[in-house]
Amino acid sequence: MNRPDIQLNSDGKLKHFLTIDGLGRNLLTEILDTAESFTDTSERSIKKVPLLHGKVICNLFFENSSLTRTSFEVAAKRLSADLLNLNIDTSATTRGETLLDTLHNLESMQVDMLVVRHADSGAAHFIAQHAAPHASVINAGDGQHANPTQAMLDMFTIRRHKGDFTGLRVAIVGDILHSRVARSQIMALNTLGTSEVRIIGPRTLLPSHARNLGVHVFHDLEEAIRDVDVVIILPLQKARMSSALLPSEREYFQLFGLTEARLAAAKEDAIVMHPGPINRGVEMDSQVADGPCSVILQQVNFGIAVRMAVMSMALGSQAQGGPAR
Amino acid sequence: MNRPDIQLNSDGKLKHFLTIDGLGRNLLTEILDTAESFTDTSERSIKKVPLLHGKVICNLFFENSSLTRTSFEVAAKRLSADLLNLNIDTSATTRGETLLDTLHNLESMQVDMLVVRHADSGAAHFIAQHAAPHASVINAGDGQHANPTQAMLDMFTIRRHKGDFTGLRVAIVGDILHSRVARSQIMALNTLGTSEVRIIGPRTLLPSHARNLGVHVFHDLEEAIRDVDVVIILPLQKARMSSALLPSEREYFQLFGLTEARLAAAKEDAIVMHPGPINRGVEMDSQVADGPCSVILQQVNFGIAVRMAVMSMALGSQAQGGPAR
Amino acid sequence: MNRPDIQLNSDGKLKHFLTIDGLGRNLLTEILDTAESFTDTSERSIKKVPLLHGKVICNLFFENSSLTRTSFEVAAKRLSADLLNLNIDTSATTRGETLLDTLHNLESMQVDMLVVRHADSGAAHFIAQHAAPHASVINAGDGQHANPTQAMLDMFTIRRHKGDFTGLRVAIVGDILHSRVARSQIMALNTLGTSEVRIIGPRTLLPSHARNLGVHVFHDLEEAIRDVDVVIILPLQKARMSSALLPSEREYFQLFGLTEARLAAAKEDAIVMHPGPINRGVEMDSQVADGPCSVILQQVNFGIAVRMAVMSMALGSQAQGGPAR
Repeated sequence: MNRPDIQLNSDGKLKHFLTIDGLGRNLLTEILDTAESFTDTSERSIKKVPLLHGKVICNLFFENSSLTRTSFEVAAKRLSADLLNLNIDTSATTRGETLLDTLHNLESMQVDMLVVRHADSGAAHFIAQHAAPHASVINAGDGQHANPTQAMLDMFTIRRHKGDFTGLRVAIVGDILHSRVARSQIMALNTLGTSEVRIIGPRTLLPSHARNLGVHVFHDLEEAIRDVDVVIILPLQKARMSSALLPSEREYFQLFGLTEARLAAAKEDAIVMHPGPINRGVEMDSQVADGPCSVILQQVNFGIAVRMAVMSMALGSQAQGGPAR
Repeated sequence: MNRPDIQLNSDGKLKHFLTIDGLGRNLLTEILDTAESFTDTSERSIKKVPLLHGKVICNLFFENSSLTRTSFEVAAKRLSADLLNLNIDTSATTRGETLLDTLHNLESMQVDMLVVRHADSGAAHFIAQHAAPHASVINAGDGQHANPTQAMLDMFTIRRHKGDFTGLRVAIVGDILHSRVARSQIMALNTLGTSEVRIIGPRTLLPSHARNLGVHVFHDLEEAIRDVDVVIILPLQKARMSSALLPSEREYFQLFGLTEARLAAAKEDAIVMHPGPINRGVEMDSQVADGPCSVILQQVNFGIAVRMAVMSMALGSQAQGGPAR
Repeated sequence: MNRPDIQLNSDGKLKHFLTIDGLGRNLLTEILDTAESFTDTSERSIKKVPLLHGKVICNLFFENSSLTRTSFEVAAKRLSADLLNLNIDTSATTRGETLLDTLHNLESMQVDMLVVRHADSGAAHFIAQHAAPHASVINAGDGQHANPTQAMLDMFTIRRHKGDFTGLRVAIVGDILHSRVARSQIMALNTLGTSEVRIIGPRTLLPSHARNLGVHVFHDLEEAIRDVDVVIILPLQKARMSSALLPSEREYFQLFGLTEARLAAAKEDAIVMHPGPINRGVEMDSQVADGPCSVILQQVNFGIAVRMAVMSMALGSQAQGGPAR
């Protein structure tokens, strides 16, 4: 499932964006640099560029997420593409055949890009394999596997504040085991040369072979964030509590909730990040979420530029490297 | 909640449009005049103007209303803006924090305008306070508080037919107490200098301090519409009946339903208005709704131009008077 | 209900597209030729033409169908029109008055075209009668009555592969009785001069006066497809099984399911068509659906060009032949 080459066309250009896994430092840096050029766009009085005029992009969401869908929609429209929203009830597509027929239908309508969110790990790869050669696929989150545009907007935010990744210490706090965001972040941080990536969370929510991921495991929050440059807080999924992997929200906050007092252990200019939505009073308190170290809303803002970068790179390579349609 | 200045920027230009309350006759007249210029647009063969090209407008509807949403969507597209639809299930945003986080997310995606409909009175003000300084807010109806674009399209329709407001007698019929439309209409009519505004409806559905609103209260329908220039019928909400504020539909029609016979008491050239949706046979019979005095579909038509006016004025003042983004 | 003239304006140009019934060979051929010109459009690098810039088209779907809705949406956007999606819960519009008020509202907002799908036969005609003179109506499927754009994209696919209709033998397999697609296909095939149209299916699912439709009825699948040029398979609706009109899926496949072995009876260069969605293993097996004779995905692809043709013809005649708006 994770053959990295499917993401690249024969010239080594990005065709799909499914996972950070297998992508080199140069390509990740190219995404960040391209996104940088689009932040200018959003500061101009007319925020549209005609780069993808005439392209059709389809938000194919099997999991509901209004704000993520909206972020991709704004990015597509800033690039002058036409955007379709398809929310697909997975109960109607339980058979793989039906999903494939839906895909082939969209492809036959000459949809140029599918932005896919799905509850199953591997869904985006599966779709990319079958949507090729015509349509590009962007993974907007698949199961517990990957969420690469989220990871790249996080990298963009870190680079804006800290410059280079070399020499940085980053702590990721929460449910690492089930988090596609954490998985993508860890790969991106390591690929970009981050000195030290730390993870911390309840023992039941840490991956068993954490060291293979290139991270250091911590069990005490204050120790984990001591002298770090970046603290990344993950959202807590309530489902974990009913499945007995977690104690109560209250107990979680006592052990792993970020407060100003605890944040004092980090470097003075540390930044606090969160991919949203925030459960205030559980993962962090509001003083931190809305405080001077928080760059949470900047992440949302930079998300538009990063998604514009990925969309334009993937559709640009399609035009050059792909077969004539 | 009703501090009027929040609607205006430092130059006195419209930034948000939340309520008629606090806006002067000049500003209301400017909205009507601007709308007048857009009715030409809709008669041209190409009905779009590039005024808001590159702007992102978000329909943020916490209450479902397909036709109102569509009216704003058509208006936005005629102005060449990009429009996003977000229908938000209020059950998912019961905590104020979550609503705020949603707002801040949209703002961080550089959405330029939020068109808000919400079941709670004051929701649009709350959102405007927190979406500032970047995004403009248009109130598309909040609880029992206000629906100012509906009121202004009603004023536009009246001015088209009657010219000046001075010297006009207007009767508003129905559930005045719970109607955000009536509240906004009464303020607009008085601000624009209408001679006499009358209200009539079941005693349980009239405001207790009606005289403070600048209206005359009537209890007999034929008396209320005698010699009026304009009759405005309000929709009846069925919920009032189950809550015992109202007798049956049939009894309501006998006392307050508008028929051709009753309409004969009004001036010969009187116009009949209704904000929709009509409950035929309850608030009025079909002969009146579809008859020669009815201007109900003209209201819908003028609604596009009035909403274009408000959108372009609010986003125009944002560009001039606001901080660079 | 089937008065043919309502579809044409006074110059004999297409104004609405509701049914194949009553349209002549010249008009159907004009649709196919216009669609041919749009297939070039979709092969260009910028796939948009400014033909309907400034027009507002509304998808008014009372029956849910994501892929059909998407096909019309892509077609509208390739023509540079603005497209609105309105999914209307029919439980909210049980009273005819309410549907009419909704229509008149949309018309008053100067929506130029309504694309209608509805569970009731005749709904599209009803809407066209009441939306006139301003808005054009395209029938995207009404009850068991008609689905004329589906039929025309099928004709387009056949003409692409077989050239002329004269001399062709076409077999339609499945639930003919309840199929709006079959009804429209049969009319289109006969109007375009097809030599022989055969129908085959369970006796309970064949129309009682089949011969009046200009078709030959068969009861054995292999006989029915012997020496045909085109095999059209219809989707099977599961509801028929619970209503006892049909045996099990398994038994249906044994009698009427298309396999490669059975397809051998047809001409060597026969094509297999299906309007989707396919129930694999019921109506046909996957070797046929994905095999060399299948043109099913081409149908979807040509659907964009055919819908562009119908939209541009109907709105073009509106501009020329209709009253000034």
